[in-house]
Amino acid sequence: MSAQKQKQTSKPKTAIEPTREENYAEWYQQVVKAAEMAETSAVRGCMVIKPWGYAVWENIQRGLDDMFKATGHQNAYFPLFIPLSYLEKEAEHVDGFAKECAVVTHHRLEADGEGGLKPAGELEEPLVVRPTSETIIGATFAKWIESWRDLPLLINQWANVVRWEMRTRLFLRTAEFLWQEGHTAHATKEEAVEETLKMLEVYRDFATNWLAIPVLTGEKTEGERFPGAENTYCIEGMMQDRKALQAGTSHFLGQNFSKAQEITFADQDTNIQHAWTTSWGVSTRLIGGLIMTHGDDDGMIMPPRVAPSHIVILPVLHKEETRDAVLAYCEQLAEDLRAQSYDGRPVRVEIDKRDLRGGEKSWQWIKRGIPLRAEVGPRDMENDAVFVGRRDRGHKEKETIARQDFIDGIESLLTEMQDAMLAKATAHRDENITVIDSKDEFYAYFTPEREGDGKTPAPIHGGFAMTHFSGDVDLEEQIKKDLAVTVRCIPTEGQGLPGQDEPGTCPFTGKPSAGRVVWAKSY
Amino acid sequence: MSAQKQKQTSKPKTAIEPTREENYAEWYQQVVKAAEMAETSAVRGCMVIKPWGYAVWENIQRGLDDMFKATGHQNAYFPLFIPLSYLEKEAEHVDGFAKECAVVTHHRLEADGEGGLKPAGELEEPLVVRPTSETIIGATFAKWIESWRDLPLLINQWANVVRWEMRTRLFLRTAEFLWQEGHTAHATKEEAVEETLKMLEVYRDFATNWLAIPVLTGEKTEGERFPGAENTYCIEGMMQDRKALQAGTSHFLGQNFSKAQEITFADQDTNIQHAWTTSWGVSTRLIGGLIMTHGDDDGMIMPPRVAPSHIVILPVLHKEETRDAVLAYCEQLAEDLRAQSYDGRPVRVEIDKRDLRGGEKSWQWIKRGIPLRAEVGPRDMENDAVFVGRRDRGHKEKETIARQDFIDGIESLLTEMQDAMLAKATAHRDENITVIDSKDEFYAYFTPEREGDGKTPAPIHGGFAMTHFSGDVDLEEQIKKDLAVTVRCIPTEGQGLPGQDEPGTCPFTGKPSAGRVVWAKSY
Repeated sequence: MSAQKQKQTSKPKTAIEPTREENYAEWYQQVVKAAEMAETSAVRGCMVIKPWGYAVWENIQRGLDDMFKATGHQNAYFPLFIPLSYLEKEAEHVDGFAKECAVVTHHRLEADGEGGLKPAGELEEPLVVRPTSETIIGATFAKWIESWRDLPLLINQWANVVRWEMRTRLFLRTAEFLWQEGHTAHATKEEAVEETLKMLEVYRDFATNWLAIPVLTGEKTEGERFPGAENTYCIEGMMQDRKALQAGTSHFLGQNFSKAQEITFADQDTNIQHAWTTSWGVSTRLIGGLIMTHGDDDGMIMPPRVAPSHIVILPVLHKEETRDAVLAYCEQLAEDLRAQSYDGRPVRVEIDKRDLRGGEKSWQWIKRGIPLRAEVGPRDMENDAVFVGRRDRGHKEKETIARQDFIDGIESLLTEMQDAMLAKATAHRDENITVIDSKDEFYAYFTPEREGDGKTPAPIHGGFAMTHFSGDVDLEEQIKKDLAVTVRCIPTEGQGLPGQDEPGTCPFTGKPSAGRVVWAKSY
Repeated sequence: MSAQKQKQTSKPKTAIEPTREENYAEWYQQVVKAAEMAETSAVRGCMVIKPWGYAVWENIQRGLDDMFKATGHQNAYFPLFIPLSYLEKEAEHVDGFAKECAVVTHHRLEADGEGGLKPAGELEEPLVVRPTSETIIGATFAKWIESWRDLPLLINQWANVVRWEMRTRLFLRTAEFLWQEGHTAHATKEEAVEETLKMLEVYRDFATNWLAIPVLTGEKTEGERFPGAENTYCIEGMMQDRKALQAGTSHFLGQNFSKAQEITFADQDTNIQHAWTTSWGVSTRLIGGLIMTHGDDDGMIMPPRVAPSHIVILPVLHKEETRDAVLAYCEQLAEDLRAQSYDGRPVRVEIDKRDLRGGEKSWQWIKRGIPLRAEVGPRDMENDAVFVGRRDRGHKEKETIARQDFIDGIESLLTEMQDAMLAKATAHRDENITVIDSKDEFYAYFTPEREGDGKTPAPIHGGFAMTHFSGDVDLEEQIKKDLAVTVRCIPTEGQGLPGQDEPGTCPFTGKPSAGRVVWAKSY
């Protein structure tokens, strides 16, 4: 038997192959597939979000939307298309997006003379499918805002956007994705900065407490800013392969866009001033972050607050004579569970009545990551009990729970599971934050060990390195070239990061540094 | 004084000019503007949906989405772009949309040598911005469906779509609009027809009971079918100018799309069969229907179930010494009202604290159509009362209601207002349905009287005419040319329409007819 084969047969069987240790990138794709969350489409780089994945997005939308409204924002909707001339108004902005724009040039189709169709009716001015909406929303804001009484203007949009990325990966980087984009205008710089940071905090709160993704908050360096922004703030999570995922950004745009688009207002002394604007967004990328933070080698694990469903009831139906009774028992159980609430809404329950082998059904739900599986057969019914499997435990570790105890305890059980997922992810993150004070150590930290053959780099290595940094743009570019590592953020204070607050010396340049920054490889 | 001027000064002042009687089409545009629901954008035919309009759409989405889920549908999301070759697969379908497609031909921008940008990176195959998604969703269904166990497949998508219409009107006909599109696949024709009719009934229920728009249900004639459908069913409402608005459609697609796209399944005997598919949709056009059904010469009137807000509290703040006390009283009132529920959710309340003249504020809310205005001044506070104006009554008809009575009665008051709006719209519709048995009478019915100058047609005339009809396509085309009147639907049975169920003779051709059809001018 070859060593290769032996390795395969001796490892514990997992539902997902390869495992995270074997090939993290491929593991991710396999989980997305096995959990039935999304798939590629015939349209280059555009994904189909399947019902189980879309339901997560709906829960994300609902949670965030409530937070946006609680902070005074209103939803509105703006055109999908942006006239080319609008995009050109802010020079840095258009440079940032010009290389990846879908451009509409025609408005109808006509026969091509070979039995097919070709574009016809050329537009006078090409239209760009929005990659983001600062320019088109800014043009509207210029119409809506006349005086200080109209400020602050606090608007959010839920929409699809298109960025023609060359290398795409489901949820993480796709040509079309779904997102929300907040756009606000203020009378003063201070108010706009306050808004930028307020929405950063909303994102931190949501990522941490809904998605169970502990995130660092911080500011981007100059090289990583949003095109056209004065400052970009971000939340950064650590995935299980120790790479960073930028999960949301909040931009202070200064007066750049208001000057480009003449967003002006009359102040209380009737002087005309340019408004100060912000924008901020999160996208379906969050779902990729969820998978990479919580999934295991058996598939997805859903945090209860955003899980499409909390419990699947699996009736054991192989005996014809008890079939109806078991089904009736399950229906009643589902009804009693739905009468309980979790997170302010009814507990989400489904019954899987399909005529499939029990093991096949059960594994499908494990791979999808549903928090709880409740098996009910004739014997459970006799004992007025359910046989419960928790997704955060091994698939064989099931336990019998008295029916009423299960119902009464469901809210606290789901709360406990949500909390445990955050605690686990936080521990993983904290274990992999390292303070580094020399260039050699830094380079070694981000250089993967080679596996047995001396060629293949280990798929999991590195982490978040905290070093002093002089802020040199060229240096950052060099490190990016050498190691594919970037400054993820200059962390905001008070996050309890090791050595965050002390001034020191940049290990790369020997220049003074105000505080440590966070470096990592990233998605 | 000229007659013209005298007419203007002697008519009662209204917030919207012109009135419905004077110029219905222009009245509509003015209401959309005055109610701050939407506006045109710089992008041809694309609208900006403003917060007050978008909130109506959010309520429509929530209501419909619950109904879709209760009938077993799941949401998913499919690409914005459709490869041209996909659209070409169903011949009738592509013919129906080819003249109004936004076509993406390039995927980046580059310098044009004159300081601007031009499209670059030509795509090998042009992409069409979805006008509807039968083809792209069908291609996915073909992958998802293998056996009878995968059926029925019941999917809905909330999305934006683009149809390059030449003549646009806010909400009613725009180049980009928001909608939902249901797409389902079934093992048998019977099941697919049942689904088509089930969703038609969901639309009827929603339009009637949420939007307070009484609608007729029926089947479209051949000429009015969805491109590629076997049968198209619709809901048709009557607007205040007595024209019809098609407010939703449900299509039985037969096996047309499943044959074009190879959506096949193995039946229980392992024979490969083509699935039977349906599609159905409603859009932001519903909001246009709401305005044209309920608005009056002072602006919009919102049915409580979809109103962005139910009550605005207007504090009377002109005395500095009572200002804080009045505001505190209003805050408490708002809190107590929000603790009440209407339609299964908390009552929606806002307090307008802006420093504007009371009349100006009050009129803004009247134009927006908020169901209730509650004024609170020092004297009301002393009497523990509120001074309430109902939007469905004259703006001066306000009444003092004891605070606690107002709170306790809010649910029944909103219910009463919702019911009254439906009753009023139903009465208007029923008054304007006419049974017609001769061609002359039919032509006279749809020919507007001329106004004083003998030239201007009266903006409001006609209605729904019910005639026998032999089903002749050419005849229908002729009537459309002569009068701009079409068969709105062959009504489904049991709607209590006058003379619906008796067979008779077509007044245009003298041929036999199975039953009366509904004719009208339409949007």
